[in-house]
Amino acid sequence: MFVARVTGSLVSTQKLPSMVGYKLLLVEPYRLESEHRQSLVTTGRTFVAVDLLGAGEGDLVLIAQGSSARLTPETRSMPIDSLIVGLVDHVHVADRCVFERTEDPRR
Amino acid sequence: MFVARVTGSLVSTQKLPSMVGYKLLLVEPYRLESEHRQSLVTTGRTFVAVDLLGAGEGDLVLIAQGSSARLTPETRSMPIDSLIVGLVDHVHVADRCVFERTEDPRR
Amino acid sequence: MFVARVTGSLVSTQKLPSMVGYKLLLVEPYRLESEHRQSLVTTGRTFVAVDLLGAGEGDLVLIAQGSSARLTPETRSMPIDSLIVGLVDHVHVADRCVFERTEDPRR
Amino acid sequence: MFVARVTGSLVSTQKLPSMVGYKLLLVEPYRLESEHRQSLVTTGRTFVAVDLLGAGEGDLVLIAQGSSARLTPETRSMPIDSLIVGLVDHVHVADRCVFERTEDPRR
Amino acid sequence: MFVARVTGSLVSTQKLPSMVGYKLLLVEPYRLESEHRQSLVTTGRTFVAVDLLGAGEGDLVLIAQGSSARLTPETRSMPIDSLIVGLVDHVHVADRCVFERTEDPRR
Repeated sequence: MFVARVTGSLVSTQKLPSMVGYKLLLVEPYRLESEHRQSLVTTGRTFVAVDLLGAGEGDLVLIAQGSSARLTPETRSMPIDSLIVGLVDHVHVADRCVFERTEDPRR
Repeated sequence: MFVARVTGSLVSTQKLPSMVGYKLLLVEPYRLESEHRQSLVTTGRTFVAVDLLGAGEGDLVLIAQGSSARLTPETRSMPIDSLIVGLVDHVHVADRCVFERTEDPRR
Repeated sequence: MFVARVTGSLVSTQKLPSMVGYKLLLVEPYRLESEHRQSLVTTGRTFVAVDLLGAGEGDLVLIAQGSSARLTPETRSMPIDSLIVGLVDHVHVADRCVFERTEDPRR
Repeated sequence: MFVARVTGSLVSTQKLPSMVGYKLLLVEPYRLESEHRQSLVTTGRTFVAVDLLGAGEGDLVLIAQGSSARLTPETRSMPIDSLIVGLVDHVHVADRCVFERTEDPRR
Repeated sequence: MFVARVTGSLVSTQKLPSMVGYKLLLVEPYRLESEHRQSLVTTGRTFVAVDLLGAGEGDLVLIAQGSSARLTPETRSMPIDSLIVGLVDHVHVADRCVFERTEDPRR
């Protein structure tokens, strides 16, 4: 899995039948900043993930990819390969908090 | 999943039996432009995906990869790993529309 | 899937029993050249794929990866993750032919 | 699989039901240093993996990805794609020990 | 699949039960050298693969990834995603031998 920031959303009306009714969010994978190791920074990549948890723009989320995205009752028959499996509350590195949800300036 | 632009098509007459009769499109993954974050730009990569939705050159589409590409009645027995699962109508980032289908100058 | 050029072949006599009797080809993924968009160029990467179609050096082929490589009667029990699923006849981008099999100078 | 250093941990209270009760660790893939080939160095990438083995920050671990992460009794129904499958004791390259657990200065 | 050089080995005593008893090797993916196309060169990446074939340091091997690594009687229940499926004897590119096992100077 990887941590990602929700950066936007996507609307598709013409899609495969099993995709109807599910929210599609744009997400951007984040990584630990290499030099100071005190923050999470974007990788600059863009993915689309299905959301079942009510995530919103700005949230840091945990993403599972591949067949694992189908391991829920709702998604088991969907042709999807990315799913938000959790909303991240905080991330700790070397006993330091590098991300905390309520301190997030983008919300 | 990822968003991609349909850039072309591919014809193969000598192929595995289960592949016969399906349209193969060239697609180019797109990402959010990093600096201004107001548009989608190409990643420069090239993939081939099966299309069941009637997508055409210039369309922005949503692509699923891996075993998920076989999660439709039509593709369940095909040796494919990329499928167009939706045509993208619009994409929003930070309450701004960064892509809208009818405004697309390339159509 | 992706398009790739067959660049060579590989022989392995000491291998897992289910691999015996299948042809292994070296393939190089290709992508659309970014600037002029009138030709396919190599990505410089090297993969190995199983061939059931009689592909030969110089051919442009379509490759499926992952569990999809096992979706044929011949390969269903093989520990393989790459299969040639088609030989490419031609590729069109923006109504222009960027690859045609008989015009290929490398054959 | 790949070797990775555990660099931190992640807490998510709002998550999919099957994810509850499992430890999530931040891991950083390592590779053999290219020039002298006498040490393992970070690739600078960040992933999140489920831990069933009691791994802690600083440990070098072995990570399996994809559907393989579900091949344990505990994880078989979880929507996860990364699992710690072993704690690394030592790594040898060209008859030289390039990593040994007890000599690790970061513990 | 891809070709890789075995560069080392890894020992893990604290691991998941189904992993016990299997040899873990460090492998480095190789690719065709781009300019002269007469040799295989390292990509500089590092992976870990299970070996059932008695491969040793210096050997060039063929690696399968993903669920395919479980397509053998021995590995079917293991949480692994990389397996050595063959030892490479020789590789030919454009009617030239770019690798032959007995001529390998590193053995």
